[in-house]
Amino acid sequence: AGDAQRGAEKAGSCLACHGAQGKAAAPIYPNLAGQNAAYLELALQAYKKGERNGGQAEVMKAFVAGLSDSDMADLAAYYGSLQPGD
Amino acid sequence: AGDAQRGAEKAGSCLACHGAQGKAAAPIYPNLAGQNAAYLELALQAYKKGERNGGQAEVMKAFVAGLSDSDMADLAAYYGSLQPGD
Repeated sequence: AGDAQRGAEKAGSCLACHGAQGKAAAPIYPNLAGQNAAYLELALQAYKKGERNGGQAEVMKAFVAGLSDSDMADLAAYYGSLQPGD
Repeated sequence: AGDAQRGAEKAGSCLACHGAQGKAAAPIYPNLAGQNAAYLELALQAYKKGERNGGQAEVMKAFVAGLSDSDMADLAAYYGSLQPGD
């Protein structure tokens, strides 16, 4: 499983859309706080593998392109560790 | 925008994985309670348009195949109306 602390250090480029506390900056982006880390990791992997396309997926694909598997696991652990409504 | 009450009536086939209160039955499925309705609608549309493929996406594509645009808007409104951690 990922490391939430390391994930927090890597989340800089996620904040603009997903918010500092995982509450999305706009309703077309998903809230991530309290989401299941395993699901988040699968979603990040899906963007990286090109299994998600069109619309916002194109933006996400650009962001995940530079992430390693452990980066994605850490980011998933970080957002999963936040409490929704914080 | 969708109608949460109508969405509740259509959510029968979603419960097995996403839970009665939108808390996923397994960590590889996303929690939906309190998720942004606009995002949920985009995600459902992405499954319907074949923009999401592989893994669990194949399961979701089967579920959304029979849904109309208003069904998807209502389901998104319903799950978006639930409070996380209910």
